[in-house]
Amino acid sequence: MAAREPEIITSKDKMRNWSRAMRAQGKTIGLVPTMGYLHKGHLSLVSEAHQHADLIVVSIYVNPGQFSTSEDLSTYPSDFHGDIQKLMSVPGRVDVVFNPYDLYDYGRVRDSKGTEKCENVGVVSCLEERGAGHETWIRVEKLEKGLCGKSRPVFFKGVATVVSKLFNIVEPDVAIFGKKDYQQWRLICRMVRDLDFAVQIIGSEITREDDGLAMSSRNVYLSPEERQKALSINRSLSKAKHAAENGQISCKSLQDSIIFAIEEAGGNVDYAEIVDQETLEVVEEIKAPVVICVAACFGKTRLIDNMEITT
Amino acid sequence: MAAREPEIITSKDKMRNWSRAMRAQGKTIGLVPTMGYLHKGHLSLVSEAHQHADLIVVSIYVNPGQFSTSEDLSTYPSDFHGDIQKLMSVPGRVDVVFNPYDLYDYGRVRDSKGTEKCENVGVVSCLEERGAGHETWIRVEKLEKGLCGKSRPVFFKGVATVVSKLFNIVEPDVAIFGKKDYQQWRLICRMVRDLDFAVQIIGSEITREDDGLAMSSRNVYLSPEERQKALSINRSLSKAKHAAENGQISCKSLQDSIIFAIEEAGGNVDYAEIVDQETLEVVEEIKAPVVICVAACFGKTRLIDNMEITT
Repeated sequence: MAAREPEIITSKDKMRNWSRAMRAQGKTIGLVPTMGYLHKGHLSLVSEAHQHADLIVVSIYVNPGQFSTSEDLSTYPSDFHGDIQKLMSVPGRVDVVFNPYDLYDYGRVRDSKGTEKCENVGVVSCLEERGAGHETWIRVEKLEKGLCGKSRPVFFKGVATVVSKLFNIVEPDVAIFGKKDYQQWRLICRMVRDLDFAVQIIGSEITREDDGLAMSSRNVYLSPEERQKALSINRSLSKAKHAAENGQISCKSLQDSIIFAIEEAGGNVDYAEIVDQETLEVVEEIKAPVVICVAACFGKTRLIDNMEITT
Repeated sequence: MAAREPEIITSKDKMRNWSRAMRAQGKTIGLVPTMGYLHKGHLSLVSEAHQHADLIVVSIYVNPGQFSTSEDLSTYPSDFHGDIQKLMSVPGRVDVVFNPYDLYDYGRVRDSKGTEKCENVGVVSCLEERGAGHETWIRVEKLEKGLCGKSRPVFFKGVATVVSKLFNIVEPDVAIFGKKDYQQWRLICRMVRDLDFAVQIIGSEITREDDGLAMSSRNVYLSPEERQKALSINRSLSKAKHAAENGQISCKSLQDSIIFAIEEAGGNVDYAEIVDQETLEVVEEIKAPVVICVAACFGKTRLIDNMEITT
């Protein structure tokens, strides 16, 4: 028997009404936020969601708020029909796909100067460039700074803001985030705590290809040769984890080995840092739970990966 | 018959559970956020709330997040017992007083460096100084800048953040804000729109003393002589409104008259600006709905007031 197609909802009001009607029936709701173009990593988040909630909402929305003006929002890949087919292949049912056209469309904006940029704001997203009139941003001031925050200055304020919007529209009991985007997951956890959102955040383990490469929409951009070289990320992380578990607590030494291995394979390391699992502050010696986070380019493709060490 | 005392709730969880239980019974909930030390202006907000919701929650919480380190949080006046008595005098019932001890207490914070200040953040609140581990702030980037934002750089980020927390804890259908704090009211409206909070915001008209002075907790600090002088604010605003309604559309001219009248009475004008009612952008000629906003000191007491002109 073919799986039932999920209900597709595009309006904020209909989405919230659906959630409230379901909650009134005593059902719990799990949200899996995505930007579409789904792969097995996303599908594993849906499976995880089934462990924590009665009903599952997958949001598919490419958020302009997290792209800077120099990043190309318009070429972000999408395949809505394919996504629905993939979601129907997950064991258990996806109840709703929330697929809004524009989460930042508030109707008439009276400010006639709506197209001017926000002044005195250090970082500008695509959204501000478009003059959408949106001006409220959530900043998780410490966690947004390090790791990917250095090279992507609008990314995390865009993510925190759109996730808050989704929480306020979908009103889920639980939301699932992949630990592949480790900084994003920790930042959302902190935001939920600090703003008292009544949403439980689940971090879902990284899904890997058979050869160890972390699943990512970007993997399709790798040439066969680059793909082979990119295996150096997971291999060097595994090796460092093994060394740490056998007593190597100097982060400098572990970090150097990772950078050396990736660069030797032909990668270009953006960062390889060993940080506290909660605060993401750089540590010098492994004494408490840490995570090794890596970003590296192979050709034009930037990949991220990480590995937790809980000694 | 004496009015029934409101239920006093201090825990976040109990507060949310109460709201959810009431909503499950089909009741709507109105929230009136206050910092206590209530006066007739606050009580008018409670009366207004009864027009929009079945059950009323008044929060009493002095929010450290909106005080800068140079402002003295510890001397902010409070009179909890008196507040409860006053709330019992309002026609209609206040169902709950939400009086949390510390909205920013998240239990153990693992970061051992929790006492260090947040770096690269332009403005620091009392909260950051105390090292509470809270690091998520909501910025309404344009509306927070002008008027009172100039002299109180942490105020609006503190207000937006604590109001979001209260919305997430109390989960009200409606929240009432006084138009006395005009910028705050408009900023909350914008935040609610931009973050898709399912809360209707009501702006409640300014309550004035018989002689026209806008009600404020700070009025008690005025000497009898200063109190007389302070009437120049409302008088000059009324005169400007009258002039505008009779065709005077030049804001420069209206502004000059207000500043002259207040300074002549012995006040020290911080600002007197004529701004668009929604965007709070300064206008040069009155062509659309505007509001005249004034902040002025009499002795050591800083007063604010405003008047809408909808020609």
